[in-house]
Amino acid sequence: MTEHTYKHIELTGSSAESSDQAIQNAIAKAAETIKNIHWFEVLETRGYIEDGGVHYWQVTIKVGFRIED
Amino acid sequence: MTEHTYKHIELTGSSAESSDQAIQNAIAKAAETIKNIHWFEVLETRGYIEDGGVHYWQVTIKVGFRIED
Amino acid sequence: MTEHTYKHIELTGSSAESSDQAIQNAIAKAAETIKNIHWFEVLETRGYIEDGGVHYWQVTIKVGFRIED
Amino acid sequence: MTEHTYKHIELTGSSAESSDQAIQNAIAKAAETIKNIHWFEVLETRGYIEDGGVHYWQVTIKVGFRIED
Amino acid sequence: MTEHTYKHIELTGSSAESSDQAIQNAIAKAAETIKNIHWFEVLETRGYIEDGGVHYWQVTIKVGFRIED
Amino acid sequence: MTEHTYKHIELTGSSAESSDQAIQNAIAKAAETIKNIHWFEVLETRGYIEDGGVHYWQVTIKVGFRIED
Amino acid sequence: MTEHTYKHIELTGSSAESSDQAIQNAIAKAAETIKNIHWFEVLETRGYIEDGGVHYWQVTIKVGFRIED
Amino acid sequence: MTEHTYKHIELTGSSAESSDQAIQNAIAKAAETIKNIHWFEVLETRGYIEDGGVHYWQVTIKVGFRIED
Amino acid sequence: MTEHTYKHIELTGSSAESSDQAIQNAIAKAAETIKNIHWFEVLETRGYIEDGGVHYWQVTIKVGFRIED
Amino acid sequence: MTEHTYKHIELTGSSAESSDQAIQNAIAKAAETIKNIHWFEVLETRGYIEDGGVHYWQVTIKVGFRIED
Amino acid sequence: MTEHTYKHIELTGSSAESSDQAIQNAIAKAAETIKNIHWFEVLETRGYIEDGGVHYWQVTIKVGFRIED
Amino acid sequence: MTEHTYKHIELTGSSAESSDQAIQNAIAKAAETIKNIHWFEVLETRGYIEDGGVHYWQVTIKVGFRIED
Repeated sequence: MTEHTYKHIELTGSSAESSDQAIQNAIAKAAETIKNIHWFEVLETRGYIEDGGVHYWQVTIKVGFRIED
Repeated sequence: MTEHTYKHIELTGSSAESSDQAIQNAIAKAAETIKNIHWFEVLETRGYIEDGGVHYWQVTIKVGFRIED
Repeated sequence: MTEHTYKHIELTGSSAESSDQAIQNAIAKAAETIKNIHWFEVLETRGYIEDGGVHYWQVTIKVGFRIED
Repeated sequence: MTEHTYKHIELTGSSAESSDQAIQNAIAKAAETIKNIHWFEVLETRGYIEDGGVHYWQVTIKVGFRIED
Repeated sequence: MTEHTYKHIELTGSSAESSDQAIQNAIAKAAETIKNIHWFEVLETRGYIEDGGVHYWQVTIKVGFRIED
Repeated sequence: MTEHTYKHIELTGSSAESSDQAIQNAIAKAAETIKNIHWFEVLETRGYIEDGGVHYWQVTIKVGFRIED
Repeated sequence: MTEHTYKHIELTGSSAESSDQAIQNAIAKAAETIKNIHWFEVLETRGYIEDGGVHYWQVTIKVGFRIED
Repeated sequence: MTEHTYKHIELTGSSAESSDQAIQNAIAKAAETIKNIHWFEVLETRGYIEDGGVHYWQVTIKVGFRIED
Repeated sequence: MTEHTYKHIELTGSSAESSDQAIQNAIAKAAETIKNIHWFEVLETRGYIEDGGVHYWQVTIKVGFRIED
Repeated sequence: MTEHTYKHIELTGSSAESSDQAIQNAIAKAAETIKNIHWFEVLETRGYIEDGGVHYWQVTIKVGFRIED
Repeated sequence: MTEHTYKHIELTGSSAESSDQAIQNAIAKAAETIKNIHWFEVLETRGYIEDGGVHYWQVTIKVGFRIED
Repeated sequence: MTEHTYKHIELTGSSAESSDQAIQNAIAKAAETIKNIHWFEVLETRGYIEDGGVHYWQVTIKVGFRIED
């Protein structure tokens, strides 16, 4: 049956390593408290700079999860 | 008195029937747990296709509700 | 000859019935006073909610009509 | 295996009946020549007006289909 | 350590006084129940009109707060 | 009964004083000739500069009013 | 004194000749009935095609004029 | 009968002469292989620069054509 | 003669006081080193929050100035 | 000679590995059947989630190729 | 070697003659002081109106140039 | 004290290696001549293609730095 309802929330994950890892960190954090997460979309990629390089990446994502019936 | 604060959340409703019904389904689901819902806005209309027709409609809406004082 | 000029106006129609009917209502109202209306485009679909369902649909459209030569 | 590639095309469907039917018409037409169509998204809803009502609806959609491996 | 995760929520604040005060009201309301709020961004400034003047301002903001580790 | 039709117009108000006052000035001017104005939305905030400061603020708003039945 | 109010309207001009001329045609038409026009901005450039070439250009502009005090 | 389906494709035309001519060149090229082209819309106007002037114009357009029944 | 060229730069001004003052501060800073500044446009209004209120406002503006002939 | 015409198509590539690899996969697939591909632009980065991590990345790109003269 | 860095600046050129010429004027002005300019993109086309016609065209462009290694 | 003013500039960095490295290269180049760089945001990710793969990545970023008091 496909008449599910989904909720979307907006998160920003951080990583010193890479933009992909910042996304992974935000999803891992969300999965600690939310069940049925199954989708994300990148909204914005930013970062802080120190000593002429990226100090940490900050990626804002929208995460979708199914609301329990 | 009009100095209320409102919160908006983003939901996707599904329906095999029509795009309007997908919106109704998302609102009905939200109303099970949220009081004071009084407004929605369509953000995106999508759907899944099977056998050359729309299998189910998926409409993403923003829903606004008043935060209790 | 095709060197006509067109004007666009922005209207919001309401309907308790459906999103399509809200568009029809706005166009019917505009046609009472404007001649040569021949085109519309949906800008925004919203609505008011009561008792866990859509109380009325509000669709904002841009309507185009030819200015008389 | 999930490393598929998908292609998106943009179509406008027309219907004298409703905005949902204009989408169904575009999908039915596309399905005559394209296999593996499984997704659509509404880009724009417009229409032509005659005698103070919608003469026909025109809905532009993006349609996605899997490229054969 | 900077690998925090942040959540964003969307609020509308109201004020009879000014657009800046509508923002302050939304933040004050949110701070009653959410810890670690540290950032906002204006999404939309609207208002209701009576007697040829702004009756109250309504400003929609996105508010960001750090999720507890 | 809620099946009203609304029209939106776009105005730019000016003020030497503040951005909020530029909005008030546009609404006051519109209210001289239009009845039933009940809503505005800010589209753009600009201004002219002289002597290293804002000489006057120019705020463009969309104003909505109900069309008489 | 600079506390004027301006109104903006949206027009589409047509020309068989060029995109610039389509703009000139819309402005000339508007100037027949509106005083104090002093600014335009291009919103959209489109056109109709026949025999593998542009049959006529259609440029939609926003036109601003000062409301009489 | 108006229940046609239209397809849109995206092209970039080039011209050393003018922005309008870059559009004409893209349409002429498309018309060599596609029937029933009847509409275009400008998406982006760019160009390459040499010796302090525009070396050639590059205009990206969306072109619409009717799918044969 | 009107064939001037203008340059636009993007600045963020800060103020503990108000959003309008954040704009004034950015313009005053720019005017220390740039001549012929005559126009600004608001791109983004944000702020930092402490103790349930706006700690300081941050408004990003585009500033335009005439390049000397 | 620079008066070439280019066509753009929209593809979504998938990868279990990284967002960059999803782009590479879409381009490799397109290059199997299209000649003269020479440019891409990212339109959207999404992904599917399982077990609190990105199960596979889905990046939608626009790909440009020169049409043969 | 392709690991160059490019800078983009935003300029508005003016011309009494045509929209294309306004672009040429901005580029010619920029080329007086900047080396390695090789690309532009149109951001906005506006103009001032007098006596029912375009008095001068104002086109805002983004110009890209390579930073010297 | 927080009443600083920040300036933003737009850069495109290139890398044969990855999209993240293209960002790092643009920042490293900017840091050779600008002090107090402390923030970036991705505006666009593009690239050039050769032999069915990404030849080099081109990422356009907005970089923010504090103007010296």
